[in-house]
Amino acid sequence: MKLVRFQHQGRPQWGQLEGQTVHVTGAWSAARTGETLALGDVSLLAPAEPSKIVCVGRNYLDHIRELGNDTGDLPAEPGIFLKGPNALAEPGGMVTRPDWTDSFHFEGELALVIGQRCRDLKPDVALAAVLGYTCGLDLTARDRQKTDLQWFRAKAADRFCPLGPWLETDFDPTDVRVQTRVNGEVRQDGRTSHMIFDVVQILTYVTRFVTLEPGDVVLTGTPEGVGPLESGDTVEVEVEGIGVLTTPIG
Amino acid sequence: MKLVRFQHQGRPQWGQLEGQTVHVTGAWSAARTGETLALGDVSLLAPAEPSKIVCVGRNYLDHIRELGNDTGDLPAEPGIFLKGPNALAEPGGMVTRPDWTDSFHFEGELALVIGQRCRDLKPDVALAAVLGYTCGLDLTARDRQKTDLQWFRAKAADRFCPLGPWLETDFDPTDVRVQTRVNGEVRQDGRTSHMIFDVVQILTYVTRFVTLEPGDVVLTGTPEGVGPLESGDTVEVEVEGIGVLTTPIG
Repeated sequence: MKLVRFQHQGRPQWGQLEGQTVHVTGAWSAARTGETLALGDVSLLAPAEPSKIVCVGRNYLDHIRELGNDTGDLPAEPGIFLKGPNALAEPGGMVTRPDWTDSFHFEGELALVIGQRCRDLKPDVALAAVLGYTCGLDLTARDRQKTDLQWFRAKAADRFCPLGPWLETDFDPTDVRVQTRVNGEVRQDGRTSHMIFDVVQILTYVTRFVTLEPGDVVLTGTPEGVGPLESGDTVEVEVEGIGVLTTPIG
Repeated sequence: MKLVRFQHQGRPQWGQLEGQTVHVTGAWSAARTGETLALGDVSLLAPAEPSKIVCVGRNYLDHIRELGNDTGDLPAEPGIFLKGPNALAEPGGMVTRPDWTDSFHFEGELALVIGQRCRDLKPDVALAAVLGYTCGLDLTARDRQKTDLQWFRAKAADRFCPLGPWLETDFDPTDVRVQTRVNGEVRQDGRTSHMIFDVVQILTYVTRFVTLEPGDVVLTGTPEGVGPLESGDTVEVEVEGIGVLTTPIG
């Protein structure tokens, strides 16, 4: 099932998407109200209301190598960093290239949204805590990532996390294609089976330290091929079996 | 004025504290309902409902030196990192020493809570965006801070941010004493006038990159004297003119 979040009658709402028809539910966990809308008539929002956005860095070996971070040893544990809810941007929404970075990079990723409060998840039940999967764009000020004490403005600035276009609840994250295109040209083309830490390992690791709440977002890391964006570019992140997240750069 | 947040009749509420009397307001921005409670009869909560907790690292020179991070140059810009709302702990509430760190450190700090949505704050209006000030304990897994890719579990684990006991709205943060005691012994004894970046500089810097929302928490950095905690210790953070935040370690 596809869950969409959208602006309607002046407030954010959720619905279930079938073909081009949105069956309004109001809340993501609620039943259909009976009202339907055409997908083309609603303005989509990022399909999550997170208390935090938990991200995995350096989760694909070829990406580690392209940034010169290969020490010869694979990471022993996932490298985690945070964004706040301020970082979310809606599917199709423009993100302005900041004037304080000379190296504004795209990182296309598989993202997931949590459906229930969870702590100390065991591997056999970890995927059951996931509400659904979507496409994420982990925008990164690469130069500031290197110069700053921690990855704050480099990763967590306003609108540095476009997400969407919807959540797919019937989805196996084990081995799907994650492709990023800039102005139609393929720049990243990975498979989730190449992750160093898979979704189950990420969730069990993260929940050893933090409680995940319903609506929390997890970004699972980016494959190789990252690169700079300029004003006027259009980024598309496509996760096989989900859809395409489009982000114009202003 | 002192604003308190507390659990009452099964839900979190806000009130105004006068002496030992809580004048219930419900929401922090609401007027008194007329109901009063004795301070001793309510269970205090962390006085904030944040979408994010923004922290400053290395903001006191003597603290930079004690950790061996002095490069000879003062930081050119504040070093910022994030905790999520999961990190909050209530005043007086026990925090369990995690089993995954061998170096669980206290860092007492002046904290503040934002009262209005703000972005690109100008210096002359920055302090007007602050709802009130309180005491913060930035608990830190020092060993993990050094080994991990980013300060995630080292800083943002559950209950790594005790906050309280209340917000003081009539407060000048320019030059007040910040003292941390462990089992009654003074371990940190700094003054906010020794910050490398003062509250105005922190707020103008942070809001260049992220929008702060009402309820968001800012921790302003810790003076020298940090050190390890063991089970059975009691930490007190006292900010002059505010009060004492007490945290037993379990």
